[in-house]
Formats: sequence, C-alpha cells, structure tokens
Amino acid sequence: MSYKTENDFDQLSTEIDKVITRIQKHTKSKFQPVQDIIDTTIQNNGKLLRPRLLMMSAMFGNYESERMVNLASAIELLHMATLVHDDIVDDATLRRNMPSVQSQFGKDMAVYTGDYLLSKALTVFKPSDYQDDQILSLSKVISRICESELLQYFNRYHFMSVRHYLRVVSGKTAALFSLSMYLGAIESGCSESLSKTLGKIGYEIGIAFQIIDDILDFKQEETIMGKTVQNDVKKGYYTLPVIYAFEGETLQLDQLTTSEILEKIVERKGLEKSRILAQKYTEKAFKRINLLPDNPSKDTILEVAARLLRRSY
Amino acid sequence: MSYKTENDFDQLSTEIDKVITRIQKHTKSKFQPVQDIIDTTIQNNGKLLRPRLLMMSAMFGNYESERMVNLASAIELLHMATLVHDDIVDDATLRRNMPSVQSQFGKDMAVYTGDYLLSKALTVFKPSDYQDDQILSLSKVISRICESELLQYFNRYHFMSVRHYLRVVSGKTAALFSLSMYLGAIESGCSESLSKTLGKIGYEIGIAFQIIDDILDFKQEETIMGKTVQNDVKKGYYTLPVIYAFEGETLQLDQLTTSEILEKIVERKGLEKSRILAQKYTEKAFKRINLLPDNPSKDTILEVAARLLRRSY
Repeated sequence: MSYKTENDFDQLSTEIDKVITRIQKHTKSKFQPVQDIIDTTIQNNGKLLRPRLLMMSAMFGNYESERMVNLASAIELLHMATLVHDDIVDDATLRRNMPSVQSQFGKDMAVYTGDYLLSKALTVFKPSDYQDDQILSLSKVISRICESELLQYFNRYHFMSVRHYLRVVSGKTAALFSLSMYLGAIESGCSESLSKTLGKIGYEIGIAFQIIDDILDFKQEETIMGKTVQNDVKKGYYTLPVIYAFEGETLQLDQLTTSEILEKIVERKGLEKSRILAQKYTEKAFKRINLLPDNPSKDTILEVAARLLRRSY
Repeated sequence: MSYKTENDFDQLSTEIDKVITRIQKHTKSKFQPVQDIIDTTIQNNGKLLRPRLLMMSAMFGNYESERMVNLASAIELLHMATLVHDDIVDDATLRRNMPSVQSQFGKDMAVYTGDYLLSKALTVFKPSDYQDDQILSLSKVISRICESELLQYFNRYHFMSVRHYLRVVSGKTAALFSLSMYLGAIESGCSESLSKTLGKIGYEIGIAFQIIDDILDFKQEETIMGKTVQNDVKKGYYTLPVIYAFEGETLQLDQLTTSEILEKIVERKGLEKSRILAQKYTEKAFKRINLLPDNPSKDTILEVAARLLRRSY
C-alpha cells in the first residue's frame, strides 16, 4: 500500500475546478440576494468529495471530461441541496466554519435555496448523454437519502441498534458515495463487474466517512469542525458513540441529560469503539482497492480512503 | 360557448383516480409516521387540476393511459412538494381546511416531506418513455418555480408593478399549468403547433387561477378557503389587489398597518380591478379554446376555465 503526496492527491484538481465553474455558471441568478446565497453555499462546501470519487472511478474507463463534469456537478448540487436543508433541521449556525444559509438568511430562504439547488442538479446534465437506468438510479438515491433522513428524524431521543444506525448511514451518506463511484465507472465504459466493485468501495468509504463525522461531532472545538459541539446529542440524534456506550442497557436515553450521556460515552469508550468500526470499513475498502486493475487512479483512491480515516479537521 | 354538467366535467375521473392510486402506491413508506404525512398531504390536495389539464390536453392526440398517468403523477407530486415547502414559508396552519404538514408535524418534518415528495416525482415515471427534451423542460420548470418563489420572497414588504407581479405568477403557477397541457399534447403525438396552443391556454388559465387565489385570500372566511385570511398582506406579500390599490402612490407600504392597507384596497377597488384582469386572461383562454379542433375534450377545457373564474370556494 503506497501513500502518495499532496500533489498526487490533487491531480484531479483541474477536473474539480471545472465542476466548480460548471456549478457557478449553472446556478447564476439575476437576483443578487439569490446569488449571494449560492456563492456562500459553494464557498462553505468543502472538498467536493463525491465529484472526486466519481472522477477517480471514471478514470478506470474511457474518461470523457464534459460528460463526467456535468454528472459530477449534478451529484454535488444534489449534495449541496441536502446540506442546506439539513441545516434547517439541525438548527446549525455554522457549516464548515461559515455561517449556515439558514442562520444568515433565515429558514424560509434556506427552504427555497435547497429546492433551487436541487432543481439545478436536475438541469445541469442532458439526460440523453447517459444511460436511462443510471438517471433513474440517481433519482432513486435522492428518494433514499430523504427516507433515511426521515428515519433518523423519527428516531430522535430513541436508542438505535448498531444495525439500525448503519441502515441510516447507508441511506443518508454511503448510497451517494457508492453511486458516484459506480456511475463514474459505468458511464465511462467500465464493465458491470468493475463498476460494481468501485460502487462497493464508495459504499465502504461512505460508511467510514459518516462514522468519523459522528465521532468528530463529539471531539472537536466549534472552530475546528465548523459545527456546534455535541449538536447531535442535544438534538436527540444518538449516533454510534452513544450507541456503543449504551448497548445492552435498559435505560431510557431521553431521561438522561446531555452531560450524563457524554460521561457514559467516555466511561464506555464509545469513541474508540466507533473508530474501530470506521477502521473496519476503511480496511474493507483498502482490500477491495488493492484488487483493482492497475491504474494511476488506484493510488489516488487509496490515498483518499486513508485521509478520510486520518482526518481530524 | 357551452357549459357542461357536473358529470361531463368529471368524465376524467377514472384517469384521475388512477393518478391518486399511482401516487399512493409510489409513495408508500414502511415508516408509519412518514405514511401518515403523505396521506395527509394527498388528502389535503384538492382537485388535481394539473393532472386534469394534462389529460384533457392529451385527449387531443392518441391518449395512452399508463404513460399519461405516470407523467401526471410526476407533475402532481412536484406540486405537492411545493405546497409542503410553501407552508413552511407561509407559516400556514391550514391547507384546504386541513392542518398543514408543518403545523401538524413541525417545520423540520415538512422540509423532508417536501424533499421526499419531490424525489418521488422523479422516480414515478421512466424517463425513456418520454422525449428527452420534455423531461428536461419539466426539470427547467422546477427551477423556474424556485426562482419565482425566491423573487417573491425577496420582494416582501415592497411594492411591485403589475408587470412584476405577473412575472412572479407566471413562474410560480402558470409555467406548470402551461407545461402540463403542452406535455400532455406533445407526448400524445399532437403537432408542435397544437401542443403550443394548448400550452398557451394552460398559461392563461394558470395566471387567472393565481389572481383569483390572491383575491380569495382577502375575501374568504378561514373555513371557506382553508387559509388564514389576509395571510399574504400580514407576511408582506403584496399581491394584485394591493398593487392596484397603491398604483402611482409614493407611499412606503412597509410603513402602513395591515388594516390601513385593507382600507385602501376597498376604497380603490383593488379586488374588482384584479377580477377584471383575471377575466381578461380567462377570456384569452376561451378564445383560444374555441379555435381548437373539434374534440370531446374541448368543452371540458372550456368548463374548467369557466369554473376557475366562477369559483368562490
């Protein structure tokens, strides 16, 4: 297993820049306030992980820049829409150190901005440029993300099993990671079998990514994560560290204070156990990546997976 | 011009029942609370005007039930999604006499329910069953609805010209009415020219429909409209009756109380003038309908247009 340098990791930066330009151009609005909101959302929007995964995967086949840039833009716009709507539900004031759309512009505006971004996701690509089944699978993942957000929402203040937690994470995060890698491959002419393998890698990376996000929710200062600390527990979202801390207990979690829950997590090593599960998924992905055919993209995918586990920012 | 009876108006009821069944089947959720919300939204959802228009239009061509039912379901699901999200922004407690999703289940739930319905709109039809350009035009109308909602939102507490008002109404309501009629026709093998005419009829009916909705906001008791009376003015949405009442004034509307605005509307005949404009659009539609080729659907469209102008429920 080789780890590559910063430069190699950023070999896709030209393509990613094209995605940013494509999104900016496509969401241009004649109304300045709408434009401000979109710019803020793009600025807040981190590392474009899903477009990166899609493109790395596409490079196993016959990479066609424009088709892949448009598809990746659609996926990123869809992701941006979910971020904006999640902020409403989370009551988040910060998103990656920047004020969230809803804290800057109000919930009402956040509802429409999310819808607008989603509508733009649907028009940034020409359906006929891709296989019909693939367009449908993208729409189905949107449904799945919504269903998982709903499932998670209805389970606030309730104890979930690890299995139940993984079902939520699988729908709300891993499905889009998986689809990004699968679509990049299949739409670049990779075989069904190779595309499926890349899809599974995306799935495993996605699960690890979300578990680590949930761990960081407990560990980081507000200024590091750009999120309010222990936001999840306060809002009744009991993620993996809570689940590990309370496994086998008959306690009613909704009768405990936030600090009682936090004490128990430390005592029962909820964070360490969660990290082990994230590592397990990352290692599954590593194994699968190592079996991929030789390709410059292979090491880049390995590096991304390794970074996700290492990240503490 | 002939006005037909209740029975004739309901000749499409079999097809409309199929749309309701299709929507119910397609949005079925394994989570009971999600199911409750969807059922409430379907129940609250009135007359399925857009599917009706689509089907009446399709009957000018070679009407294919399943293709049209799926397309109409997509359009209605999209409309349902916008209703749920509009309720959040309007802070509405009632929607057609039923508690709105947000008042029953909270804003957070309304955000996800709207997203879920939209995602279901995208998966209720198979893109390959329709022309590629038509699928794209549906996506573009979604963008346009969002842009118009944003435009309207940013113009709260500001005076708009009639032209400006018509631009908002055109995007947020008439565009989808128009597309419903255009798509029904073009996807049933009607000529481009006939389809465009039907699209224009849909546009004119849509404008008249929205103007009348805005008039009813002032005139009706809460129990009649299922909406809080004068909700629009209180929230700073100055619709056509306000615009007619304050035309040519240099007054700052945001410095007036709601009751000062209402007095002025009565004094300046804002409602009567609005009704005249609605009538003008309905008559435009009538003229165009009368020029349509002979078809059983022609009278039904005439009747729908006439009912919309007459409605006081």
